[in-house]
Amino acid sequence: MRGRELAFSSIAELAGLIRSRRVSPVELVEAMLARVEHLNPQLQAYLTVTGELARAQARAAEAEIRRGRWRGPLHGIPIALKDNIQTGGIRTTAGARFLAEFVPAEDAAVVARLQRAGAVLLGKTNLHEFAYGVTTENPHYGTTRNPWDVHRIAGGSSGGAAAAVAAGLAFASVGTDTGGSIRIPAALCGITGLKPTYGRVSLWGVVPLAPSLDHVGPLARSVEDVAILLGAIAGWDRRDPASVRRPVSDFYAALQGRQSRGKPLRGLRLGLARNFFLAQVQSEVAQSFWAAVEQFAKLGADVVDVHLPRLADAEEAGTTISLAEATWAHQQAGYFPAHAEAYSAEVRKRIELGAEVRAVDYLVARERQRQLQNELAEVFVRVHALLAPTVPVVAPRPGTQVVVLAGREETVRTALLRFNRPSNLAGCPAVSVPCGFAEGLPVGLQLVGRWWEEAELLRLAHAYQQATGFHRQRPPLDA
Amino acid sequence: MRGRELAFSSIAELAGLIRSRRVSPVELVEAMLARVEHLNPQLQAYLTVTGELARAQARAAEAEIRRGRWRGPLHGIPIALKDNIQTGGIRTTAGARFLAEFVPAEDAAVVARLQRAGAVLLGKTNLHEFAYGVTTENPHYGTTRNPWDVHRIAGGSSGGAAAAVAAGLAFASVGTDTGGSIRIPAALCGITGLKPTYGRVSLWGVVPLAPSLDHVGPLARSVEDVAILLGAIAGWDRRDPASVRRPVSDFYAALQGRQSRGKPLRGLRLGLARNFFLAQVQSEVAQSFWAAVEQFAKLGADVVDVHLPRLADAEEAGTTISLAEATWAHQQAGYFPAHAEAYSAEVRKRIELGAEVRAVDYLVARERQRQLQNELAEVFVRVHALLAPTVPVVAPRPGTQVVVLAGREETVRTALLRFNRPSNLAGCPAVSVPCGFAEGLPVGLQLVGRWWEEAELLRLAHAYQQATGFHRQRPPLDA
Repeated sequence: MRGRELAFSSIAELAGLIRSRRVSPVELVEAMLARVEHLNPQLQAYLTVTGELARAQARAAEAEIRRGRWRGPLHGIPIALKDNIQTGGIRTTAGARFLAEFVPAEDAAVVARLQRAGAVLLGKTNLHEFAYGVTTENPHYGTTRNPWDVHRIAGGSSGGAAAAVAAGLAFASVGTDTGGSIRIPAALCGITGLKPTYGRVSLWGVVPLAPSLDHVGPLARSVEDVAILLGAIAGWDRRDPASVRRPVSDFYAALQGRQSRGKPLRGLRLGLARNFFLAQVQSEVAQSFWAAVEQFAKLGADVVDVHLPRLADAEEAGTTISLAEATWAHQQAGYFPAHAEAYSAEVRKRIELGAEVRAVDYLVARERQRQLQNELAEVFVRVHALLAPTVPVVAPRPGTQVVVLAGREETVRTALLRFNRPSNLAGCPAVSVPCGFAEGLPVGLQLVGRWWEEAELLRLAHAYQQATGFHRQRPPLDA
Repeated sequence: MRGRELAFSSIAELAGLIRSRRVSPVELVEAMLARVEHLNPQLQAYLTVTGELARAQARAAEAEIRRGRWRGPLHGIPIALKDNIQTGGIRTTAGARFLAEFVPAEDAAVVARLQRAGAVLLGKTNLHEFAYGVTTENPHYGTTRNPWDVHRIAGGSSGGAAAAVAAGLAFASVGTDTGGSIRIPAALCGITGLKPTYGRVSLWGVVPLAPSLDHVGPLARSVEDVAILLGAIAGWDRRDPASVRRPVSDFYAALQGRQSRGKPLRGLRLGLARNFFLAQVQSEVAQSFWAAVEQFAKLGADVVDVHLPRLADAEEAGTTISLAEATWAHQQAGYFPAHAEAYSAEVRKRIELGAEVRAVDYLVARERQRQLQNELAEVFVRVHALLAPTVPVVAPRPGTQVVVLAGREETVRTALLRFNRPSNLAGCPAVSVPCGFAEGLPVGLQLVGRWWEEAELLRLAHAYQQATGFHRQRPPLDA
């Protein structure tokens, strides 16, 4: 198993081969670096390729494993990191021009955890400038292209992280999600992305966007691989004020449990909030979504309608909180106004708008956030998760400003954020999995789960992936 | 024991007499109502006297106790409530003109708890309009007078609650404290007042001032009586989003424990933050404070210097948070701008200022609050409590705008809030106890304790009261 075959293997699969020394981490990293060299110029997924570091880490992993010390399923696995996650000694641009040469002294908490797990760092991936946008059209570092069609965007802000994984240029990556920035590119690139519960994964060492909505989480090609990553990066961190001390289960092992044949989801109830999650959705996307709903019913889940009127507040509340907190965070970091001239006009405008937000409006938004949390908490007494499309459209072309859905014009930004923001506001976990294709482009299905119940959420998503093959489809990129 | 003697008895003492039927709750309430009728016209402590209700509650208590059902130390004890605490069927003005006829449908959570404890409600006490000020010079309902000198203010915002207790017009009262509103009038009136840990006592049914800084707490003449009240009002409440589920100990019983003779505080360490709590203090106040420090040392406590540079941020951060949240709360409640014309110019101005606060400045203030919390948490590893003056001055005369301290002019408002705000921002408990007299007026000592350690804090304060007699001094009012 070499080359393209190897590049699209799952971590779950590779881990066994590495442990039993049938695959060498050194060969693996060489194969991946060759792919990156070949494909990254057109995809612009990576901003920085850490080839020498990756080779050294792979050699160290190989030596350790030879000595009988296998650290676990990430040992020797090449992964990528979104470039707003600080890496000690490796430049971390956050997608900003004036940080092109910024080399942090220390690793972010998640980076240290991944290193302890034995992962190999291939490089740092492209993102929307400061993660403050959803298209990864980065005026300083280029537009990340969608592996399914390089004339389409990968989505954002973790666009490079998603494209790298989708194109077989990394086995997994870690991104950030403030309003959908993991799930949006996961959906548009046909991979699996998880925004964990707020407080589950440390934000320490990650360039903040809007601290009360920021989340760090994994992107991979399957739920199993996402579970492996989550197990490595989750855990309490004293240095992150938002971090919560909660037991971390072995999320991957939890997926391997009893699956009653045919109806593995019997006894689970899934909610549909039609008033919100089905308004203004591109018809082919809606078709894939409904087929997925049917699939969940076939798997034994009970699909019921739920009433969540407060979802309608998410857009305005999310915008107000993001605007204010992002400007505050940029001021705190000394980025703005010191480097105002080096920002793209788009992001600078948002930072300037954030300075105008009044505290009373921010407090109104926070109150709406609380009300949404309460409403969801009540619904989650009855249902185990909500089903929704991740985004209402397939990947747009670069430069697209607006889309027309159900006869209504909407900005691409608003359209891509719409179904994602509620779980950033609520802080509950949400995962996007591929659920079909429209116009030859991937469609994403979103499962929104109960606080701290990532294991349950991943079990639902895994059952779906076992029954379907969408996540195993490969982009035509290097066919 | 009748009349004045009875009126100044402690709850701890009276409880035994009521339980053994040597004191009748009905006689007790009559004696108190007679005192209120006699003294309230000059003090303006009560806004509403609930004579008929009090008599009915006293009769019910007496009947219950006769039947052998004694509810505990508050059974049959006449108390008062600050008039921003909602009482079902009894008008609750919040000190505002346009709420003069407002009769809530339901009791606040603390009122329901006090009723379950068998307390008798004498009435609702005067406050600074909307609790938004520290002098209780209320243009709509009059200025509450200090029982030690009716030509002085009682302080605020819980001015009526403190004056009533100090003058023997109630055995205890419940007030609110957003920046010092329990401790300031407790200090100026020579009584004991506790701001509990944030989240300890439900805010449900209390007119909000600045929700993230608001606290409900007891005022009484001794630490023992404060402990009895706290035991009755503390406890988790689902309806208050700030409420925290924590075990409620019997705070009163905890005071009766082992007291090693002579050195009851041996092994306890108390911190002095000289950089902050001793700057700009009236010299006679400082003298009383230092005598108290000496007293604590005599009781066996180890008094050490602590470094808390972040205390200096408390004033600005507290002002910003209060301004923004108060305006938001008044807008939410529908008070402002609907009734803008009915506000005093002073409070209306603050509400208008609050509308101008920018979200980024609010977020900066919240960040400073977190930093102060962290700094205090580190100090509280080493010390059990901090010692400070409650306020740097004795009670000013009505109409006083500025005081001059150490040659620097300062508004009365700023001076009275200065030492109190830090524990509202931090959320840690703080108690004020009388520690002497200056110009014939009471001086208050403040003990700031560890989060959730009210029992420890009260034990310290109780040991001090057992060794000194300041809390037993009575105002010359009806001598």
